[in-house]
Amino acid sequence: MTFEQQLATLGLTLPAAPKPVAAYIPAVRTGNLIYVSGQLPMKDGQLMATGPVPSVCSFEAAQAAARQCVLNGLAVIGDQIGGDFSRVVRIVRVGVFVQSDNGWTDQPKVANGGSELLQQLFGEAGRHARAAVGTNALPLGASVEIELLVEVR
Amino acid sequence: MTFEQQLATLGLTLPAAPKPVAAYIPAVRTGNLIYVSGQLPMKDGQLMATGPVPSVCSFEAAQAAARQCVLNGLAVIGDQIGGDFSRVVRIVRVGVFVQSDNGWTDQPKVANGGSELLQQLFGEAGRHARAAVGTNALPLGASVEIELLVEVR
Amino acid sequence: MTFEQQLATLGLTLPAAPKPVAAYIPAVRTGNLIYVSGQLPMKDGQLMATGPVPSVCSFEAAQAAARQCVLNGLAVIGDQIGGDFSRVVRIVRVGVFVQSDNGWTDQPKVANGGSELLQQLFGEAGRHARAAVGTNALPLGASVEIELLVEVR
Repeated sequence: MTFEQQLATLGLTLPAAPKPVAAYIPAVRTGNLIYVSGQLPMKDGQLMATGPVPSVCSFEAAQAAARQCVLNGLAVIGDQIGGDFSRVVRIVRVGVFVQSDNGWTDQPKVANGGSELLQQLFGEAGRHARAAVGTNALPLGASVEIELLVEVR
Repeated sequence: MTFEQQLATLGLTLPAAPKPVAAYIPAVRTGNLIYVSGQLPMKDGQLMATGPVPSVCSFEAAQAAARQCVLNGLAVIGDQIGGDFSRVVRIVRVGVFVQSDNGWTDQPKVANGGSELLQQLFGEAGRHARAAVGTNALPLGASVEIELLVEVR
Repeated sequence: MTFEQQLATLGLTLPAAPKPVAAYIPAVRTGNLIYVSGQLPMKDGQLMATGPVPSVCSFEAAQAAARQCVLNGLAVIGDQIGGDFSRVVRIVRVGVFVQSDNGWTDQPKVANGGSELLQQLFGEAGRHARAAVGTNALPLGASVEIELLVEVR
């Protein structure tokens, strides 16, 4: 199945690429690599998850937020490649920051909300290297921030 | 205007490239990419901003510190390219860590202190992808740490 | 001395490459670059250091953990290059996250546990760019997480 068919199968549509919240741009391409800026879980112009996990934001909400961060990142990538996702060679690296209560330890499971989506959409090409960590504070109070590095043709 | 002219217009001079504070080196080049190590807001051998924002370090001081981190990173890049900044093709990615009080949310505005300088100095080539996050602790107690990825010719 | 001889001189052997703790893979190669996923200080299937430094995990234990993270990362790289470490051109970048008490400042010295090992094993090729930061929470409660970027032939 193509990316578009997989997206439809999952009942998803790509959002419009989010605007950066400050003085930078959504993505930069160098050679065959696209660096996507850190994405927040914006949906319809609102953050869908704020505060630390799990005291303020539930684990499940954070996992859904990670999925939304990735969807937003894919929208950014789409803008870079004229919407032709067959040009994605490989999702190379995913960096995940989860706003966490001190010592909370399940960042990998939160991050899976995004990682599993990438594998569902791209198959083997969606399998990526990853660093997932916690933090005590994120922009706008978001519970999750995710950046992507993607190889394209 | 050239990089040097823009720098002068802003009343700035590049510092000497800071020495790493431990067992690593200031930058590594691979292909056309230069990876610059995380820069602290060192100025004349002293950190110009320490402690979390905003309880100990003010927002304004952190923003100035971000600018200094970028200046220090540019000094490192200058060392790699023989001081010829016309060889900078693109600032690709900027990674920003802001020492933050729990749940503080204005890391993007702090990071802008560095991002806006890059755009002033390099114009279109200075527009970059970025990930800015908070953290509860940084080396030497610095309020900001910034790493750079730059494409050169 | 070769990598293998240096390893033996240090009394070290490479572990089996750790399995990722979630939905991602240990490393992705794009061009001549290998991105290694964030490595935890797993040893014989157990984390050798958990909790924040220094209140729960001592500085010395964290430094040893950083060294173990790098060893685990090298095992992952070995899998990618058929165990032939003469194919390592350069350790390009090392990203280090140290679970830290609020405002603790010696992340660079912890990170040196990994950085110094890389220089011992690879000599000039092991000298890398680095970003080391603190955080209030890491996966599984690990005291240190390290990711690697390596150029290979």
